[in-house]
Amino acid sequence: MTEPRDEQRGDALTVFRDPASVTVVGASADPAKWGHWLARGALKGAHRRAVHFVNARGAVIEGRQSVPSVRDVPGELDLVVLCVPAAGVPQVVREALDKGARGFLGITAGLDRALHPGAERELAREIRRRGARIVGPNCLGIYDAATDLQLAWGEFTPGPLGIVSQSGQLGSELANLAADSGLGVSRFVSVGNQVDVTAEEALADLAEHEQTRVVALYVESFIDGRRMIRTLRRLRDAGKPTIVLTVGASEASRAAARSHTGAMTSALDVVDAACRAAGAIRVDTPARLVAVAQALLGAPLPRGGRVAVVGDSGGQGAVAADVMAAHGLRVEPLPEAAREKLAAVLPPDAGLSNPVDLAGGGEQDMTTYATVVETLLADPGTDAVTLTGYFGSYGEHTPSIAGRELDVARRIATAAKRHGKPVVLHSMSRASETVALLRRLGVPTYHTIESAAAGLAAARRLAELPGRELPHPGTRRWPHPLDGYLAARRLLQSAGVPFPGAEPVTTVAEVAAAARRLRPPYVLKADWIAHKTEAGGVRLGLADADAACRAFEEMSAALGPGRYVLEEMDTRAGTVEMIIGARRDPTFGPVVMVGAGGVLAELYRDTALELAPVDPPTVAAMLRRLRSHALLTGWRGGPPADVDGLIRTVVAISTLICELPACGEIEVNPVRVGPDGVLAVDALVTVLADQTTEEDR
Amino acid sequence: MTEPRDEQRGDALTVFRDPASVTVVGASADPAKWGHWLARGALKGAHRRAVHFVNARGAVIEGRQSVPSVRDVPGELDLVVLCVPAAGVPQVVREALDKGARGFLGITAGLDRALHPGAERELAREIRRRGARIVGPNCLGIYDAATDLQLAWGEFTPGPLGIVSQSGQLGSELANLAADSGLGVSRFVSVGNQVDVTAEEALADLAEHEQTRVVALYVESFIDGRRMIRTLRRLRDAGKPTIVLTVGASEASRAAARSHTGAMTSALDVVDAACRAAGAIRVDTPARLVAVAQALLGAPLPRGGRVAVVGDSGGQGAVAADVMAAHGLRVEPLPEAAREKLAAVLPPDAGLSNPVDLAGGGEQDMTTYATVVETLLADPGTDAVTLTGYFGSYGEHTPSIAGRELDVARRIATAAKRHGKPVVLHSMSRASETVALLRRLGVPTYHTIESAAAGLAAARRLAELPGRELPHPGTRRWPHPLDGYLAARRLLQSAGVPFPGAEPVTTVAEVAAAARRLRPPYVLKADWIAHKTEAGGVRLGLADADAACRAFEEMSAALGPGRYVLEEMDTRAGTVEMIIGARRDPTFGPVVMVGAGGVLAELYRDTALELAPVDPPTVAAMLRRLRSHALLTGWRGGPPADVDGLIRTVVAISTLICELPACGEIEVNPVRVGPDGVLAVDALVTVLADQTTEEDR
Repeated sequence: MTEPRDEQRGDALTVFRDPASVTVVGASADPAKWGHWLARGALKGAHRRAVHFVNARGAVIEGRQSVPSVRDVPGELDLVVLCVPAAGVPQVVREALDKGARGFLGITAGLDRALHPGAERELAREIRRRGARIVGPNCLGIYDAATDLQLAWGEFTPGPLGIVSQSGQLGSELANLAADSGLGVSRFVSVGNQVDVTAEEALADLAEHEQTRVVALYVESFIDGRRMIRTLRRLRDAGKPTIVLTVGASEASRAAARSHTGAMTSALDVVDAACRAAGAIRVDTPARLVAVAQALLGAPLPRGGRVAVVGDSGGQGAVAADVMAAHGLRVEPLPEAAREKLAAVLPPDAGLSNPVDLAGGGEQDMTTYATVVETLLADPGTDAVTLTGYFGSYGEHTPSIAGRELDVARRIATAAKRHGKPVVLHSMSRASETVALLRRLGVPTYHTIESAAAGLAAARRLAELPGRELPHPGTRRWPHPLDGYLAARRLLQSAGVPFPGAEPVTTVAEVAAAARRLRPPYVLKADWIAHKTEAGGVRLGLADADAACRAFEEMSAALGPGRYVLEEMDTRAGTVEMIIGARRDPTFGPVVMVGAGGVLAELYRDTALELAPVDPPTVAAMLRRLRSHALLTGWRGGPPADVDGLIRTVVAISTLICELPACGEIEVNPVRVGPDGVLAVDALVTVLADQTTEEDR
Repeated sequence: MTEPRDEQRGDALTVFRDPASVTVVGASADPAKWGHWLARGALKGAHRRAVHFVNARGAVIEGRQSVPSVRDVPGELDLVVLCVPAAGVPQVVREALDKGARGFLGITAGLDRALHPGAERELAREIRRRGARIVGPNCLGIYDAATDLQLAWGEFTPGPLGIVSQSGQLGSELANLAADSGLGVSRFVSVGNQVDVTAEEALADLAEHEQTRVVALYVESFIDGRRMIRTLRRLRDAGKPTIVLTVGASEASRAAARSHTGAMTSALDVVDAACRAAGAIRVDTPARLVAVAQALLGAPLPRGGRVAVVGDSGGQGAVAADVMAAHGLRVEPLPEAAREKLAAVLPPDAGLSNPVDLAGGGEQDMTTYATVVETLLADPGTDAVTLTGYFGSYGEHTPSIAGRELDVARRIATAAKRHGKPVVLHSMSRASETVALLRRLGVPTYHTIESAAAGLAAARRLAELPGRELPHPGTRRWPHPLDGYLAARRLLQSAGVPFPGAEPVTTVAEVAAAARRLRPPYVLKADWIAHKTEAGGVRLGLADADAACRAFEEMSAALGPGRYVLEEMDTRAGTVEMIIGARRDPTFGPVVMVGAGGVLAELYRDTALELAPVDPPTVAAMLRRLRSHALLTGWRGGPPADVDGLIRTVVAISTLICELPACGEIEVNPVRVGPDGVLAVDALVTVLADQTTEEDR
């Protein structure tokens, strides 16, 4: 089957957006049954499409007579909702296809168990063969605000949030939490078992869905990771950023890996890298997702991380400043000019630094809130303003001043728009008229300060991460045989990774000869041993040819004959040891990691990971994320290390793994980075476990 | 003035708990004024105490006539609420004292500005002298559910949460968020400027406040830290754990410090140590505080960190498992016995590991929720159960089954009690009847999974931290002069810290003689230089006496004559470098820190800090918290380091700083810990900046 091109696939899903008719098979009069909710939901679209109910016993549902079978439905079918026991599904599907059905919504679960293993996929193939599509089975349903299509359990409020969820109930939780925050849903697709329509396809479909302005995605597996990234980027480019919720953070999911690269990174590190490449934001919980969605709707994205915090309570301002800082935002002292302007409008006890404490100024004159926010927005050193505390509650507690509060809210929203900087409000009121107005006007408004900080921090991250291209470098011939350190060295050198001089040696005479051509001191290594130190397969600091020969005699006596390597030892002072690794992730393909080397770094997992290949600016950003970054830029007055050389080396390794589809892992550890350059001093290259035959290489 | 003993002080505050009469001075008929809210609130207690309003213009408030001045109030006064402009406060106070007032609630702010600097404290002294007390000024008020005392802005729901807050509005936010979660307030004290009654005193008062079962504290400064710890422990011992919210997490608050100890730890690290010693829990936000309070009310504390997660949605179960793990709880596979019992009651598609996925089992038969929870509680490997998803919403969506859901909820609550293990619920319903019932029955129930995880994790931490004694070791004579490395060594050795052999040397002849008595190789150090490496004041690896003499000649030529130290060099292989530091915190007194040594450890701030002195079990727990802990216990098959010796050394240093009240800092860095023992190889001891005179020593 030829896969349709990305841009075209959406069309196939129109039947799930605005079908000509909906037939609920398994509609029920019992309000405790799903078939009842689906039938009731379907009726919400009865003004624009035919709605039919199929119920074996001919039940009357919400005043509408059902028919006993699909065959009895008058006219052609379009979208058919499957909510009957699993054993009955195949017959219903066939009858519906015979009557022209173009789409099926599979609510029913457990087909494989009720029928036979593989039954679901067989049914999906039959549906596809006959030109139709199926969402599910084992899904919670779909909803589309624009077309009054509600074929799902639960209640939905129309709004701008598109939800695609592998778990129906989790999608439903997202919709509920969003509604709590005044945020409605444009479209909801519970993709269930994805035997035909995938989460990625449902996402792609949102790119042209006009009502959708921000997207929520919950998946447990990404299937084809690179395709998912392309779709997420397309949504981002269409001005609809995606917030991704996924699972797998617990340590149990960290695979026992052969290399340090594996042990120092997790599956979620890879998902995070994918999100950065896609220009999407990952969150940990449904509530966090909703907080971030609010921040991405309407408000301008912050151009930097500097936040001015304003509180009408010193305590709330101080807590807000701490929470903002904990989310990676910068709460820094305000410049003198801004402080002077604030002093002119605030009471003498006011706090003029950051956080700004109104000290009763807002209570005495409510317009002070707007004036202070305007002043801070005008400050060129401020990228965003957070207002925390009582504002938003005045009208709720004292109706006589509600109108005044709404006016001030409008001024704040206007100022944010004019300056193109976000204002984020934390209000003690959950849902006052003022809070609702601010949300409508693009001022994200939260009931807890951590949600406000999470929203603003995510908006900042999104602004920094527009997504990036993941080009396909050419393919290299597999370097056969790849049977030891020297071969790995040779391969990496050909890709541009610098190594010290080295020669293969198998006899004492060869050692003596090699020593003459190489610069002392030397290192002697057993070529074929991967973890040399533990096995006694490495000797460092051999001062001259004699020492090298003696070391060779001892090592070969212990380990037996074979290929050894005499290598120049890197004795430069002031080098920083780094580790560079690349591996092939089963879902997202090649990834590259860079981190601080050594035992402590391994314990602290001080690493940065991105999808491969990477370009120099991406690597520079990776290095800045390391806590050990300070070591590279001139630690305690020392000279800076050759960061450019390190960047080139990471780029080279990331490109190499892309060029070698059969390569499972590359690890260069340590890489010694000095002021005058980079030297890799150990290397490991492995082939994928399932690709060890010559043909595959 | 003699300070009353801790246990007695509470009595002095009875006037703020259940006064015989309340007089609101500055009562107002204008609903936008605080004086109005205070007057209205005071009337709520009018059935049990006299309530008087003072208003200069004789306003009628809520149908009650006010009098124009305090002098006009009939009879004796008891509690007087000050809500008049600052300039008028002193006169009101004097008149009220003349009429027998025992307590003042100072709402008015800005006295020092309106009158003169120091006016507030002067007024407080006058009030104390005349046998009365004052809360505030600049406070939001007080509330006591037990005595219908409501003298604060806002609405309060009665319940078990006591709130003491330095910021009135933040306290009010706490009360609001608690009410949102069905959690009411027993007592609320906004302590304002604390010119007389302090936050610590208001806290102490809660120890005997029957209705209070859990305490919320917000402070920006702890004033006398050790006294606060004693009070928090007293509350804990009374079965009323305190949750502490404070500020100062942002990097700006990290003092530029002379030592590594200072740079590697923050003010909040000290607060956290204080909370551990006090058996209290610190949180970052008001919402988090409320989540934790819920978990500490009624539910048994978990005896370990192993959580069984049950979801009626696979997605929600998976997210819950990740979030629990992120909060430090352990979500581990269930034992075979538990899996078999679950299999017997769940559908074939159910997930039987951890998280448990009911796969529709709860929907088919609601009692399944209870059966599964009971099975998990009975598993000896499970310390707590988290139920996540739809449960709690059945009755809300389908009233016909509401009764059944309540029955199941009762079974769950009973099982939790019987097994003495907490069950924590995350429900998609915010406030259904079932949710309310579960909360009443001691099953903490949350609307977001992160709150559930935060609550359970805090309950676990609290169970582990009963608080500990902070004994006062005796006082040592200050070792005068303390003028260099040798003196510091001598002091530390006398306290039990092991050092290598060393001798002072001032001439080459002395070096040669010392070399004969010491074991080579040697280290030569300039005694008087604190940061020796940077200044060229240390030479390592001097193989014999000749090398030592040569090094001495070179170093003394460069640095000039003076006292040098020849020391045995620690050449043991396989040692781990640690840092031990102690310093005197201005609020909490002496603290001790232990961490991994070296540059990377400093970047990663891999340290553990506790209040001094510490005992061996406390130090063992500190070491377990280090990420570098694995290095000490036998890294990659190596022999374990002398952890007991390290523990003894930390204990010794923590005791020493307590014994020397004038000592500002002790730093031993590095401490080399090998399998056969501990050796300190550099040390620094400083005197407090303000205690440099001989008398103070």
